[in-house]
Amino acid sequence: MLSENRLKKLNQLLNQNPASEFGFGNTSNESGQRILNKDGSANINRIGEPRFNVVNIYHSLITISWTKFIFVVFSFYFILNLIFSLLYYFLCPDTIAGMIYTTELEKFLEIFFFSSQSLTTVGYGRLNPTGIIASSIAGIESMMGLLGFALATGLLYGRFSRPTAKLLYSENIIIAPYAHPTFSKEAPTALMFRITNARKNQLIEVEAMVLFSYNQNVNGVIQRKFTNLKLEISKINFLALSWTIVHPINEESPLYNLAEKDLEELEAEFMISIKAIDDTYVQQIFNRNSYYWKELIWGAKFISMVTKSDTGKTIIDLKKISQIEKIEFEHA
Amino acid sequence: MLSENRLKKLNQLLNQNPASEFGFGNTSNESGQRILNKDGSANINRIGEPRFNVVNIYHSLITISWTKFIFVVFSFYFILNLIFSLLYYFLCPDTIAGMIYTTELEKFLEIFFFSSQSLTTVGYGRLNPTGIIASSIAGIESMMGLLGFALATGLLYGRFSRPTAKLLYSENIIIAPYAHPTFSKEAPTALMFRITNARKNQLIEVEAMVLFSYNQNVNGVIQRKFTNLKLEISKINFLALSWTIVHPINEESPLYNLAEKDLEELEAEFMISIKAIDDTYVQQIFNRNSYYWKELIWGAKFISMVTKSDTGKTIIDLKKISQIEKIEFEHA
Amino acid sequence: MLSENRLKKLNQLLNQNPASEFGFGNTSNESGQRILNKDGSANINRIGEPRFNVVNIYHSLITISWTKFIFVVFSFYFILNLIFSLLYYFLCPDTIAGMIYTTELEKFLEIFFFSSQSLTTVGYGRLNPTGIIASSIAGIESMMGLLGFALATGLLYGRFSRPTAKLLYSENIIIAPYAHPTFSKEAPTALMFRITNARKNQLIEVEAMVLFSYNQNVNGVIQRKFTNLKLEISKINFLALSWTIVHPINEESPLYNLAEKDLEELEAEFMISIKAIDDTYVQQIFNRNSYYWKELIWGAKFISMVTKSDTGKTIIDLKKISQIEKIEFEHA
Amino acid sequence: MLSENRLKKLNQLLNQNPASEFGFGNTSNESGQRILNKDGSANINRIGEPRFNVVNIYHSLITISWTKFIFVVFSFYFILNLIFSLLYYFLCPDTIAGMIYTTELEKFLEIFFFSSQSLTTVGYGRLNPTGIIASSIAGIESMMGLLGFALATGLLYGRFSRPTAKLLYSENIIIAPYAHPTFSKEAPTALMFRITNARKNQLIEVEAMVLFSYNQNVNGVIQRKFTNLKLEISKINFLALSWTIVHPINEESPLYNLAEKDLEELEAEFMISIKAIDDTYVQQIFNRNSYYWKELIWGAKFISMVTKSDTGKTIIDLKKISQIEKIEFEHA
Repeated sequence: MLSENRLKKLNQLLNQNPASEFGFGNTSNESGQRILNKDGSANINRIGEPRFNVVNIYHSLITISWTKFIFVVFSFYFILNLIFSLLYYFLCPDTIAGMIYTTELEKFLEIFFFSSQSLTTVGYGRLNPTGIIASSIAGIESMMGLLGFALATGLLYGRFSRPTAKLLYSENIIIAPYAHPTFSKEAPTALMFRITNARKNQLIEVEAMVLFSYNQNVNGVIQRKFTNLKLEISKINFLALSWTIVHPINEESPLYNLAEKDLEELEAEFMISIKAIDDTYVQQIFNRNSYYWKELIWGAKFISMVTKSDTGKTIIDLKKISQIEKIEFEHA
Repeated sequence: MLSENRLKKLNQLLNQNPASEFGFGNTSNESGQRILNKDGSANINRIGEPRFNVVNIYHSLITISWTKFIFVVFSFYFILNLIFSLLYYFLCPDTIAGMIYTTELEKFLEIFFFSSQSLTTVGYGRLNPTGIIASSIAGIESMMGLLGFALATGLLYGRFSRPTAKLLYSENIIIAPYAHPTFSKEAPTALMFRITNARKNQLIEVEAMVLFSYNQNVNGVIQRKFTNLKLEISKINFLALSWTIVHPINEESPLYNLAEKDLEELEAEFMISIKAIDDTYVQQIFNRNSYYWKELIWGAKFISMVTKSDTGKTIIDLKKISQIEKIEFEHA
Repeated sequence: MLSENRLKKLNQLLNQNPASEFGFGNTSNESGQRILNKDGSANINRIGEPRFNVVNIYHSLITISWTKFIFVVFSFYFILNLIFSLLYYFLCPDTIAGMIYTTELEKFLEIFFFSSQSLTTVGYGRLNPTGIIASSIAGIESMMGLLGFALATGLLYGRFSRPTAKLLYSENIIIAPYAHPTFSKEAPTALMFRITNARKNQLIEVEAMVLFSYNQNVNGVIQRKFTNLKLEISKINFLALSWTIVHPINEESPLYNLAEKDLEELEAEFMISIKAIDDTYVQQIFNRNSYYWKELIWGAKFISMVTKSDTGKTIIDLKKISQIEKIEFEHA
Repeated sequence: MLSENRLKKLNQLLNQNPASEFGFGNTSNESGQRILNKDGSANINRIGEPRFNVVNIYHSLITISWTKFIFVVFSFYFILNLIFSLLYYFLCPDTIAGMIYTTELEKFLEIFFFSSQSLTTVGYGRLNPTGIIASSIAGIESMMGLLGFALATGLLYGRFSRPTAKLLYSENIIIAPYAHPTFSKEAPTALMFRITNARKNQLIEVEAMVLFSYNQNVNGVIQRKFTNLKLEISKINFLALSWTIVHPINEESPLYNLAEKDLEELEAEFMISIKAIDDTYVQQIFNRNSYYWKELIWGAKFISMVTKSDTGKTIIDLKKISQIEKIEFEHA
């Protein structure tokens, strides 16, 4: 249970950083559901959307996994091919010249192959349309084939050139003693997590923002509140190694004096937003993540990801991103 | 009729936010025409434009509806095909080898199909050019076919990747009593409208600007004036749910003490400008809209679009964007 | 001749806005050559560039006129075709099956057409390669054809999607009496020019900057100096109509008390830089222009480009952009 | 050896600009390895990366040299062709109609050519698939061919349209007497290097940042420190000619009173970061470079790259970028 003082403190903080500016309203979170999914999308269902929307479909084709994308492309090719085959087969089976098979199944298969030769515009020509209907369908089919590959060209380029950061986040967020040599002597405890760039591209001008979200009892109604956590360093010039993002839990922090139990009770969620510039295309990228209270560890420190090779060259090992070491930590 | 005081007030405001900075000049609006169309474009006719401009054509092909675009593509294909057919037919009908039909019409049709097979580069080959003229035309035709599909590739990609927000706006803008628990106790009335994202993509860093435009009598000449309305919150981090944009009508507001009749007389128009970042391509998007005085409702409140599912998940229903509930409202 | 006072004044201004920040150094301009060309490019010759640079070539192909671009594309196609024809003709003329002509010229022409059928991948097939050499060349040729059209696709898209504003500038810049009703009662004279959008796209957040460049005698050496001119309004939200950009010539202006003769002697140049956002692709665009002292008119005013139609709709006539009316102007 | 005073000074500076904000941590540099490579990439090895990553591959294909890129494209084409050839050869050699050769090798070669004719969709048709297996494989092959060229289209466009500046940097950074006529009378010495644009495109709004990085003994442990050097002019509007970037070594500079020996001992590295806008696509570009202490020259001045032609036109000679002239320089 939170003390009266604590509640008062949180209320004060809230009034400085009004919740509504974060765009999530103030619906409560009693059901124990997180607000942001681990991939940074909002944990919200949308209904009443227009059923068919060309931009939504494009958006899906850009963002689905490569496996699904390839499956969609091949299915689309197969189905389009099949539809045209059926048209030829039922409207004008005998005007496709050059066929060598005779059973109905073989005939259909040969038409199917003719169709695929038209769709890809390979057009070997042994099989070729003679009648007006077959020629017209073939004309439309090869045109649609080209348009289809025009679409595929755009989709492939779109998938690749889309500005996305592949950031690695430490699996856990930790609260532990922390004393920076120069700055934060007055902050013996801090909230910390760590990121690094999973890709070879350069990330520059990297900025971090951490939002603390929790339930609050307002006149008997549970509301969801949001407040910004002040970071020791919120922007670095170049993400060459790893970056441990630190929120010092000093007297100004809303986490000050909160115990493990408190955070569970508040259904605490730490919402991370990283902004950077990808140097390949010089594009702004945004990356979101979230740590739910279950992913918080008390008393641990991150093991360094950086070592030196024999020749003195700096080496960073990406696999160590989540490696921590438990430490003694007597906390409230 | 506006009181002398009111006019003075408006004059004072105007001098703080000079009209000319909005780029619409100060031509009056006596004809009762809105300045911004509902789609955000300016309600202006342009004459004296260069008749043929390749960038204007491209711009049209990017922004017209999908139905029109597909119609244009197929027409273009058909017409190009036809032009080349006529060239073959009149210049070298007998050097197309492989023809099997004999009447003139059938011959033309077969040439038309040969032309389409060249344009799409399917080139089955039963029909093939033999003479120098036919071969030359065919060489140019297949090259233009490829260039045409190169163009189509760019156009398709351009149409899809163009940064556009599909925002849903509430049908009406309302003026009603409004009291935010924390902030605006001194503003019992507010001007409000509501937006949400119609698409699945994420909109972040969403900013709103509302411009109030009205006619003013300056030394007997009616001029059009523009002034910015101060918003309670003008930027949110994440448009996950809906956002009700609120302009508190307090003593500093140019709408203070204005009655329904006044706004009609002023031919009031509220010009909305929304700026956001589309997370898919991380592109800045701009969206404009406008509410004419006829779309203003006095005394109403928006019905919440957000509910909870049985499992506690947040649900937003896009169809409720314009749903309002009339409320008692005793106004000036 | 400039008075001592004037020179002193200019020196003072210069020290506030150091020339070097504009990137043109301080080489003099005694030869009477303008610094910026009318298309906004620098009037500078570059030598010592690497002779062959793939990005420079691409840059040219994106920025040359459409006529030149189409000429380049067709020439490239023709020359590539010719090269491969010569390869077939000299290495393996007899392994192209299906030839029907017999004279050497006809043979070469038929090989040329076979080559074009390979390059465009139309491949009718009457003419087809049989030997190993011919088949290999044909394999490379069709592959290069596809790559060529891949390039063309990118170039076409690049040309269209490149952010360019087509701004219309008034032919002349004018100095004339100017009194804005509200603001600049103290500035009876102003430097003015006018712009409008030549295209259908929307330009928003339009900013203007005007640089005054002139020769100055520094200890007997003529140097080129640059100074910023303060504008009455330097940014508008929306370029829906035309925009007259005004620099009031008050006591703080470097143009204060300068006569026509003075500007000629200084070889005055006004360098214009316009920054805006093109709403179609939401791209930042930059546009530069320059007025040389010969393009300055003393005592004139711009005729309005805006009229009202019978139905009250606002009409803008782009052809009027440069229309001025001479006015009486007694100046220094 | 550094004096105690000097060390104290550096410590003071450091505390104002904490090292950690530059993203390189504070690992020492005792091994004498530079931190930034000359091409601006970080001199760091990364291990533990996922072995296969589609975005990393794409990133490589965008950034490798043209020679390598063309080699990759042709190899890919050849290998794909070969794989399909082997499939036909082992699964269905006799269902490819139209073959004219008889030895096994010739048969394989002819199948190989058939395969290439399918992959490029040229499909002459003399060779054509008849059986179900061959037809199916051919259908997939031509589809994959088209997808492959769709990929190539995107890659080619990506390579060209990628925002990259080709900046020329002077080979050396120099420390020499420097007195700007107007500004820096109090800075008789300065650190200087020079840049120019190697390409024809226009670079505007060019900004420079110089970081000084050095080893520091902190309680007996060598740590790497970073501090910003203040520039005389850090932004110019237009990079039309060359730009000499100047850091005045006055009392506020961390280089004040440092001798050649000191910089060697500190393993000094000057990290350069240039930010500009490329006017062709109006894209922000970032360019990094670094000067190691070995590339520093004491007492020299840059020879001007700018001359005038006979007609008075300004000429810039790119080959002179690194030309310096040694000067007398009595330094600490």
